[in-house]
Amino acid sequence: MAKDNFVEQIADIEKDFPQWYTDVVVKTKLVDYGPVKGTMVIRPYGYAIWENIQREMDKRFRAAGIENAYFPLLIPMSFMTKEAEHVEGFAPEVAVVTHAGGEKLAEPLVIRPTSETIIGSMYSKWIQSYRDLPVLMNQWANVMRWEKTTRPFLRTSEFLWQEGHTVHASEEEAMEMTLKMLGVYEEFAATCLAMPVLTGRKTEKEKFAGAVATFGMEAMMHDGKSLQAGTTHYLGQNFAKAFDIKFLDKDGVLKYGYTTSFGVSTRLIGAIIMTHGDARGLVLPPVVAPVQAVIVPIAAKKEGVLEACRALKERLAAAGVRAVLDDSENSPGWKFNEWEMKGVPVRIELGPRDLEAGKCLLARRDTHEKTECALAGAEESVKALLSDISHNMYARAKARMEERIVTASSLEELLSAVDKGNFVRAGWCGCRACEDRVKEFAQATARVLDKEHTQTTCVACGKKAESTVIFARAY
Amino acid sequence: MAKDNFVEQIADIEKDFPQWYTDVVVKTKLVDYGPVKGTMVIRPYGYAIWENIQREMDKRFRAAGIENAYFPLLIPMSFMTKEAEHVEGFAPEVAVVTHAGGEKLAEPLVIRPTSETIIGSMYSKWIQSYRDLPVLMNQWANVMRWEKTTRPFLRTSEFLWQEGHTVHASEEEAMEMTLKMLGVYEEFAATCLAMPVLTGRKTEKEKFAGAVATFGMEAMMHDGKSLQAGTTHYLGQNFAKAFDIKFLDKDGVLKYGYTTSFGVSTRLIGAIIMTHGDARGLVLPPVVAPVQAVIVPIAAKKEGVLEACRALKERLAAAGVRAVLDDSENSPGWKFNEWEMKGVPVRIELGPRDLEAGKCLLARRDTHEKTECALAGAEESVKALLSDISHNMYARAKARMEERIVTASSLEELLSAVDKGNFVRAGWCGCRACEDRVKEFAQATARVLDKEHTQTTCVACGKKAESTVIFARAY
Repeated sequence: MAKDNFVEQIADIEKDFPQWYTDVVVKTKLVDYGPVKGTMVIRPYGYAIWENIQREMDKRFRAAGIENAYFPLLIPMSFMTKEAEHVEGFAPEVAVVTHAGGEKLAEPLVIRPTSETIIGSMYSKWIQSYRDLPVLMNQWANVMRWEKTTRPFLRTSEFLWQEGHTVHASEEEAMEMTLKMLGVYEEFAATCLAMPVLTGRKTEKEKFAGAVATFGMEAMMHDGKSLQAGTTHYLGQNFAKAFDIKFLDKDGVLKYGYTTSFGVSTRLIGAIIMTHGDARGLVLPPVVAPVQAVIVPIAAKKEGVLEACRALKERLAAAGVRAVLDDSENSPGWKFNEWEMKGVPVRIELGPRDLEAGKCLLARRDTHEKTECALAGAEESVKALLSDISHNMYARAKARMEERIVTASSLEELLSAVDKGNFVRAGWCGCRACEDRVKEFAQATARVLDKEHTQTTCVACGKKAESTVIFARAY
Repeated sequence: MAKDNFVEQIADIEKDFPQWYTDVVVKTKLVDYGPVKGTMVIRPYGYAIWENIQREMDKRFRAAGIENAYFPLLIPMSFMTKEAEHVEGFAPEVAVVTHAGGEKLAEPLVIRPTSETIIGSMYSKWIQSYRDLPVLMNQWANVMRWEKTTRPFLRTSEFLWQEGHTVHASEEEAMEMTLKMLGVYEEFAATCLAMPVLTGRKTEKEKFAGAVATFGMEAMMHDGKSLQAGTTHYLGQNFAKAFDIKFLDKDGVLKYGYTTSFGVSTRLIGAIIMTHGDARGLVLPPVVAPVQAVIVPIAAKKEGVLEACRALKERLAAAGVRAVLDDSENSPGWKFNEWEMKGVPVRIELGPRDLEAGKCLLARRDTHEKTECALAGAEESVKALLSDISHNMYARAKARMEERIVTASSLEELLSAVDKGNFVRAGWCGCRACEDRVKEFAQATARVLDKEHTQTTCVACGKKAESTVIFARAY
């Protein structure tokens, strides 16, 4: 790979993946470190990915009848304590406002770590009758969880997310919603992020504080570790009872509602980077890439080249392709490297000879293959290529993930497998002690309960397995 | 006006405008009060207006080359104190985080009341050379200002807004940007909110804490009071010096940049309500109305009516009209009232006789006029009507505002004019004492300096007028 004036170096992805990650997120200007420890600044190139994620996710929410709303940032401390498990889980992580407007507050306020409590308090006010149900709302917001160890996108004290909150008249309907949204997330990950995931129920230990059941989607990163990329929670009547969310049912009886919540966050950007990235830097999925195609003029000073590039850019934009023309003073080689590092799915090279032949060159970021295409109709060629890149990225990541899910029947096997960067399918008796033992022995956690129960004995104690679990080291 | 089963009553707009406002925002479900004093919950119907505002404003920002980004919520207290006027202005209003993660913080953190300081600290890191300039960024975010007296949308402790922050190599360019964005806001208000505004420079007393000059747009509300609907600030080198934003210029000299900032907030929703609302409730401008057309079936049980309504709704949606079909059990009269209160610009009535005649009835919210239109091509009729409503709402509001700007040459005249709900054009000598005197005597403040200096003597002291000011009572 030519290093022709190449601006930035990134660490070797195979030798030092954590450093590669840090280099890539900072040098491609996705993100920077904020002045307060554990905070991040999402720069325009990173924020544009988030906006694309929002747009695509919002379409799916609308189709599911979910409406956006906005609830307050600050939650009275007393709200947190109304649901016992919830406060236990979140109290250690909250940031607390004690003073405001020059005075000490009568009651401390916490910055939302999640909004079940404050939304529950409003739902209690809005819901009277079965006619008001279901309530299906979502908010796009910032939340704060004070973390000791932080990394941009993956774990930061403040992050951006969406949190859906619904209320239903029955257990069945609420559980159905919980699983439906898990399906929406899985389809979104596949279609928009080209990211295969494993979905399933979480163990008691790993569930959301206050939930009856949590379901998660887990994605395999380049180093074989797992990243929890989204969760949906069936909350039963826990929050309905804590916040008095009641409705008069058709039978004239006053009943508690059943609630759910679900969320994905800016963590998805970290997931994209670590699923698809390679030695040269980012490889962005076309659906959410801020720039889908970059046009690099070759011998830009030759007559007609820049004009042709500009005309092509306009045509691409009109066809709905997010295209950029790099008409800077840098050499083509420098531009190739820079836009590769930035993960742009398609590079279009156009020079005087191409122009003469009525052609241009398309270089795809995922496989580095180059193909010629006719200038007339290039929009359609680029669109088809973007779609093909999306499918290929998904297929490649899926094949890799499937290859790297192995079965273990002892702790030693499990340890050896996760050491090699695998996910491990293993039996589990269902007791917390054995789950803890796996963590202690192999630094691996139960990611999800496998959909099919295929294993017979517990990987830790050897007793009868109640379920089959996917264990992995995780971010 | 038929009260046929009418669900909610709202106060008389002429007799008790404040109560009318409260009734309307709560009963149309735009907003509700949050559990913490001074906070609001933006409900789906209100949030959809905000999303439409965001979408339209984002288009204009993109056209101006401004990119979206996201900066941290929490700002170290020490940052606030780096710009002397800034801290004086904002310190009394901030909410302060003193504890996080179960520990007392070494340095208290404030929840951003605005982000010049934290963004300045990042710009200082990112900008090295004139080649890096201009920097044009915007963020959509929540901010917090602890206010004693609050009202939904108009003044709440937390609100949503956009804040643009730019850096330029020269004073001229920064000032040009400041005025350009003021123009963008004015055009946006006219086009998207059907709201005429007065724009101009603010007095020293009314300017942003830390700015060299603030420009504002002021809109006249139904009661003749003024609402500051957006501001742009030329910050000179104040923040550049406080945060060390320097660049190596073409001449090889290290120089401080010149910065600007500009913002509009969820306050705009309050401005819409109080500019256009009438005795029956909201009157929403078509461009940002969550629902642009509601279809009310007449004799819905008659054969073919509901099917025709559904088909029409689909055609409207396909034509880009945000349309809703009200197929609830309520009577048409009840629906008319409810959707009028909710301010939907166009109501479409469709019954068996209309169907037979191949027609439908269009009722416009702004003038209450009804017109027939052919069912075939109804999409185009509705779109044309929406456009006409937009223009008419703007023209009506503009005529009212112009009618109610009067000239005064004494404090008594000024008081009498604002008592009648007018804006007052008056001369001002330029001294703070006279500005304070007007406030004391007439509870009116200097909204903007008038573009043309037409008055000769100061309304307060009678000395030579240095400028002509628009005075008004304000929200």
